[in-house]
Amino acid sequence: MAKGLPTRSENYSEWYNELVKKADLAENSDVRGCMVIKPYGYAIWEKMQRSLDDMFKETGHSNAYFPLFIPKSYLSKEASHVEGFAKECAVITHYRLKNDGKGGVMVDPEAKLEEELIVRPTSETAIWSSYKKWIQSYRDLPLKLNQWANVVRWEMRTRIFLRTSEFLWQEGHTAHATRKEAEEETSTILDIYAKFAEEWMAVPVFKGRKTASERFAGADDTLCIEALMQDGKALQAGTSHFLGQNFAKAFDVKFQSKEGKLEYVWGTSWGVSTRLMGALVMAHSDDKGLVLPPKLAPIQAVIIPIYKGEEQLAEITKIIQPMMDELKALGVIIKYDNDDQRPGWKFAEYELKGVPLRVAVGMRDLEKGLIEIARRDDLSKEQKPLEGAASYIKGLLNVIQDSIHQKATDFKNDNTFEVNTWDEFKSQLETGGFLSAHWDGTEETEDKIKELTKATIRCILLDAKDEEGKCILTGKPSSKRVLFAKAY
Amino acid sequence: MAKGLPTRSENYSEWYNELVKKADLAENSDVRGCMVIKPYGYAIWEKMQRSLDDMFKETGHSNAYFPLFIPKSYLSKEASHVEGFAKECAVITHYRLKNDGKGGVMVDPEAKLEEELIVRPTSETAIWSSYKKWIQSYRDLPLKLNQWANVVRWEMRTRIFLRTSEFLWQEGHTAHATRKEAEEETSTILDIYAKFAEEWMAVPVFKGRKTASERFAGADDTLCIEALMQDGKALQAGTSHFLGQNFAKAFDVKFQSKEGKLEYVWGTSWGVSTRLMGALVMAHSDDKGLVLPPKLAPIQAVIIPIYKGEEQLAEITKIIQPMMDELKALGVIIKYDNDDQRPGWKFAEYELKGVPLRVAVGMRDLEKGLIEIARRDDLSKEQKPLEGAASYIKGLLNVIQDSIHQKATDFKNDNTFEVNTWDEFKSQLETGGFLSAHWDGTEETEDKIKELTKATIRCILLDAKDEEGKCILTGKPSSKRVLFAKAY
Repeated sequence: MAKGLPTRSENYSEWYNELVKKADLAENSDVRGCMVIKPYGYAIWEKMQRSLDDMFKETGHSNAYFPLFIPKSYLSKEASHVEGFAKECAVITHYRLKNDGKGGVMVDPEAKLEEELIVRPTSETAIWSSYKKWIQSYRDLPLKLNQWANVVRWEMRTRIFLRTSEFLWQEGHTAHATRKEAEEETSTILDIYAKFAEEWMAVPVFKGRKTASERFAGADDTLCIEALMQDGKALQAGTSHFLGQNFAKAFDVKFQSKEGKLEYVWGTSWGVSTRLMGALVMAHSDDKGLVLPPKLAPIQAVIIPIYKGEEQLAEITKIIQPMMDELKALGVIIKYDNDDQRPGWKFAEYELKGVPLRVAVGMRDLEKGLIEIARRDDLSKEQKPLEGAASYIKGLLNVIQDSIHQKATDFKNDNTFEVNTWDEFKSQLETGGFLSAHWDGTEETEDKIKELTKATIRCILLDAKDEEGKCILTGKPSSKRVLFAKAY
Repeated sequence: MAKGLPTRSENYSEWYNELVKKADLAENSDVRGCMVIKPYGYAIWEKMQRSLDDMFKETGHSNAYFPLFIPKSYLSKEASHVEGFAKECAVITHYRLKNDGKGGVMVDPEAKLEEELIVRPTSETAIWSSYKKWIQSYRDLPLKLNQWANVVRWEMRTRIFLRTSEFLWQEGHTAHATRKEAEEETSTILDIYAKFAEEWMAVPVFKGRKTASERFAGADDTLCIEALMQDGKALQAGTSHFLGQNFAKAFDVKFQSKEGKLEYVWGTSWGVSTRLMGALVMAHSDDKGLVLPPKLAPIQAVIIPIYKGEEQLAEITKIIQPMMDELKALGVIIKYDNDDQRPGWKFAEYELKGVPLRVAVGMRDLEKGLIEIARRDDLSKEQKPLEGAASYIKGLLNVIQDSIHQKATDFKNDNTFEVNTWDEFKSQLETGGFLSAHWDGTEETEDKIKELTKATIRCILLDAKDEEGKCILTGKPSSKRVLFAKAY
């Protein structure tokens, strides 16, 4: 285990908090509930952004930017939306400070806003008020926009990356001529999110639909991806909402169809956030530190010379330079760490930071034409010829990506249980994992189960098969299983 | 001239406002002083971001993210900083809304913050309070961070892109062990800004130093790049500040030097913003619409088939497909516009949007193996063989980039005047441009000239040569000329 890092079994929650800090991903700021994302953490977020952004653009979306502030009255326009968001808003009431005469500053009471402004908790209202101006005819549709932005939801109990008052995210907002097209968009995006989670983050996910009570405030349908963390708790990693015509009606957005009829447009919205950073940490890391999938690692391979004196260092550098050049040419992101710190210190540091491969190059090995390659994921080490090492390393990174994904998939499979009685449900819940169980379909039962166990319905799988059964709590008839879990 | 667009000579200011709107770059939002950046405008901003970001990273900077909110008390920690920014702050006083019982929402008086939060107008205070935690030893230096973020400065008189209450920008913040290193950083960044302006935006700039009264609030020295707009007004396009030890002292940031001494660190900060979008529009565009330099154009060449009927369209598409494939392979961003709008409508639309090249492909020309290529910058047209067209177009884009830059450079040179008397100064100022004149070096005279003429000292050129002279206003001795102009 890494210095000062509790083990997962000792205290999973502290392990996570400390790891995020020690690995230089992020830390809490002086402003309650807000975080500072440090360069190493931000570099991972940038890679997440880049790959998601590419996928959005490939599927015909464009980026745009809408204001940070939302007039208070806008929130009220969609009834369930305001219910969902008004409780946790940062409110701007003034636009100026002045000297307080005591060497500090105070709010200038003269500078009070006529209508208060809200810091966006999400941008449906801002964006639909623009769509009202931009959409007149079927020619203006579909309109498929995304923005990368910060949002604020005032949280009382915060947790770095997982639940912070300010967080970074992307929010897509689309408008379509038909219900069918909007529904298809909702699914397309869910597929992108799932693909990103599986192929980049190496995090396997369930794709499902939220129950009515867990839906986004203002949506007719919310699809989601749900992942499993190592402590057996679920984490919602992305949501894609079918908004029906709710926001179109709230903001009076109509278009003239090809047939000349005036109709309300159909909408979707969808987002993933810096919460994914938390999921990434919790899904793969171990007691020695982060384990990063190579596709998102800011450094994919670190090369550490083992040397005595500057002269030997120069010699080693000269011998391995061709390998480093070749690695760069192959697109592998490397770091050559020739600092004067002890190798042992460096080994621990890069383990902590989750660098997928560590290559140690010492004179004695090099004389035999060998280098040592250590994998972060399974901690295995092997000696390999320097000759051909670059392409071997390149290939090994793919192996590691797959291997991390496989390990997480096995874990998810091993921790997804069919349970059929209330006793089974309760006892299995203690170990954690996803519980596939029958539910009578009522909000009342859903609430009751949550109250009794803290477990929530994470989703109804999109590919859930029809199966007659009885609700685990009420015994009432049910036609398909749903997935329960305790969740972040 | 484009439909509904005033000419520059009629009304330059209206021409700009209308052009930004009609070319789909941005529009004012319902929130006073804030803007909506539309997809076409945002695509240009993304290209600006990408090239600047690459240059920052090449010079050893990393990105990070600091909170949107700043505790009110932080602003007061650096005396001149609070003077500069307190007057224009958005202030958060509450963190919750509640139903007002009339179908709307109101601020919940129970949810008042103990200490008000400011929406960041710039992040020195937030960042230096983190640096305090991160910097202990010379090993932690230099620390060279940048963030891409939104900031808010409450503006009473706003102008889209040029002066908005919320804008997007990058802000770099670095910490160094020595004064010399921090000063070098300040220059390095100014050089990056100048290079970006000249080579990407095709906007020639003067590099200079601000006078004491125009310095950033909290800096010891402010370097800037200044550009000239077509109406003869200057526009500050980027600033790089040497902060001395001001913020280190305000936030008590000390490090242990190699020699074991405890010393305050030296700082810099620097930024460019979406204001550059305004500069880009104003520097090159004409009465027909935008003129975009190819390196920042979201579409570099639009290909427009001139056809009758679907069958002919299919035939044309088939003939030019190899050229389009080749263009893509060469990295040229093209759009094939085979919509059913009239070609004349399309021609005007892409002129308005500043697409550098328009390629018209009609059956009659194609039968002769020809296509028509029209340049947006000089509105010239020529027929060229289809064979070899792709590489010709690729080369022509470089020619256009250079040509736009040359034109702007000629304009700047033709509108930079040496003036030696107060009368010359006043009369030349009416035509606009940069006025190179002697100044006695006092703030009093600087203020007086501003009051009398609205002209400000834009900068003291970094390469200004020593020259004995007399102040244009007071006749007092002066040792070098400075650059005056009316400015945005």
